[in-house]
Amino acid sequence: MTQLKESVSCPMGTLLNVLGGTWTFYILWILRNNGPTRFSALKRQIEGISSKVLTEKLRMLEEAEIIYRTYEPTIPPQVTYGLTEKSQDLIVVLDQLAQIAHKWYAKTD
Amino acid sequence: MTQLKESVSCPMGTLLNVLGGTWTFYILWILRNNGPTRFSALKRQIEGISSKVLTEKLRMLEEAEIIYRTYEPTIPPQVTYGLTEKSQDLIVVLDQLAQIAHKWYAKTD
Repeated sequence: MTQLKESVSCPMGTLLNVLGGTWTFYILWILRNNGPTRFSALKRQIEGISSKVLTEKLRMLEEAEIIYRTYEPTIPPQVTYGLTEKSQDLIVVLDQLAQIAHKWYAKTD
Repeated sequence: MTQLKESVSCPMGTLLNVLGGTWTFYILWILRNNGPTRFSALKRQIEGISSKVLTEKLRMLEEAEIIYRTYEPTIPPQVTYGLTEKSQDLIVVLDQLAQIAHKWYAKTD
């Protein structure tokens, strides 16, 4: 994924470096709605994403401390992802985007 | 750019299809701050973006009626981009993202 160069003078550039990219907001939106979610469930809910891309996105979001990852050594092992305390700041943004999405694109039969 | 498949049941997927992608929010953020802006000025302000990618992004945003484009037949011709009435809905999201960016990434020397 092309990265915006982190510009010291521009926190927004740094934030959009993390949040930009095709799938990121959608992953956060699913975690916001469903709460902690297994990798397989996340993959099923995002049409068109590959396991490789989803894994990379989740690792990047985890490094940015926006999501957390729990690993349970069950057989098979179970990996769950969820929004961190820090990312609660993003919920208001996700909810506003959802309102706009509804206003612009909801089918009104 | 990989496209989320438009899912009829999911306006958010449709919206994020338009707004997702590395540069999109950043372009909107510059137009939100600067008002109508020339292509060349936009390019200068987005480190790392190529003219080809910027042109594609602007065309996609114009088709989605999120930005408008004015063409003045001066010599050389001048093309200006700005936020449409519809995209005023996004300003609150952009401002919220800027607050979060400041909170998370602003240098506090």
